[in-house]
Amino acid sequence: MRKVVLAVGISVDGYIARPDGDVDFLSMAGDYSMAGFFATVDTAIMGRKTFEVGLKLSKGKFETYGLKTYVCSRTLPAGERDGLIYTAEPPEELIAKLRAKKGKNIWLMGGGELARDYLKADLVDEIHLGIVPALLGEGIPMFPAGFPQRDFKLIENETFSQGLIVVKYARVRPKAKKE
Amino acid sequence: MRKVVLAVGISVDGYIARPDGDVDFLSMAGDYSMAGFFATVDTAIMGRKTFEVGLKLSKGKFETYGLKTYVCSRTLPAGERDGLIYTAEPPEELIAKLRAKKGKNIWLMGGGELARDYLKADLVDEIHLGIVPALLGEGIPMFPAGFPQRDFKLIENETFSQGLIVVKYARVRPKAKKE
Repeated sequence: MRKVVLAVGISVDGYIARPDGDVDFLSMAGDYSMAGFFATVDTAIMGRKTFEVGLKLSKGKFETYGLKTYVCSRTLPAGERDGLIYTAEPPEELIAKLRAKKGKNIWLMGGGELARDYLKADLVDEIHLGIVPALLGEGIPMFPAGFPQRDFKLIENETFSQGLIVVKYARVRPKAKKE
Repeated sequence: MRKVVLAVGISVDGYIARPDGDVDFLSMAGDYSMAGFFATVDTAIMGRKTFEVGLKLSKGKFETYGLKTYVCSRTLPAGERDGLIYTAEPPEELIAKLRAKKGKNIWLMGGGELARDYLKADLVDEIHLGIVPALLGEGIPMFPAGFPQRDFKLIENETFSQGLIVVKYARVRPKAKKE
């Protein structure tokens, strides 16, 4: 089954971006390539705020890298335009719909609020974190509070240049809910 | 010079404890031994709230493991009693005093508010994190916001049983402030 993979770069103190959305600190990650990861996904899902920051940082030309890209928003009009799919569907419905079709894994790009919704709905199958060796002291949190405890198992822990570490976790669900 | 080492166990979402201070989830860390770390320190510093949680969890018999242990509090009376040293000294003064004497490293035990004070004062020389493979969804944060960006370099990244990873970082200070 297609997995939902939350994959993000964060600071040691757990931020995905500075307070204004800037992700300049991720450049510390140096020569780490996400090509391997990109080969495993064909779909991306992001929250509206993350999309708007991305749009600003890319100077209005949002790059989807060939991924079928969903922007989750309760305020923007739903539908397909400019190569993106806007949707207000709840996580469970969107994922059920995507899983009804064959395909590669689904990249949950963030931000924190979307991650929280997906963790609350227990839809996150894997978490991949690229942790850069800095504490920002303030910013947009990757894991804002507000979901039940979710246990994972470590599936990978690798060290890259410039102190980047990449840790990958897979969800361990209670047996009754196991698929 | 004696280093100030912030060493704590945390969840993937950055909590040192559940909302009520419980640290039961750290038992996931399995057979990881802190003996090696204990050999490098002779002094411990903790915040008042962390101390009170420790006191409660230990049923009133706080164990210092032979470390000279400071409890930082602006409300409790200063002075030495019951094998502990209570102090209201600002971080800079306490650390300057400790560094004026020869000794091993200084263990900054937490919690988050104390860590923030020490990061703000740029007194944290190393950060050692034991990360257990669970997201709590709520709790007491290790790195509450409110200090300037602090860059570190990775000095160690090791995987242990049961998915525990231990990452160690050393502070990289701007050249002007280099010691």
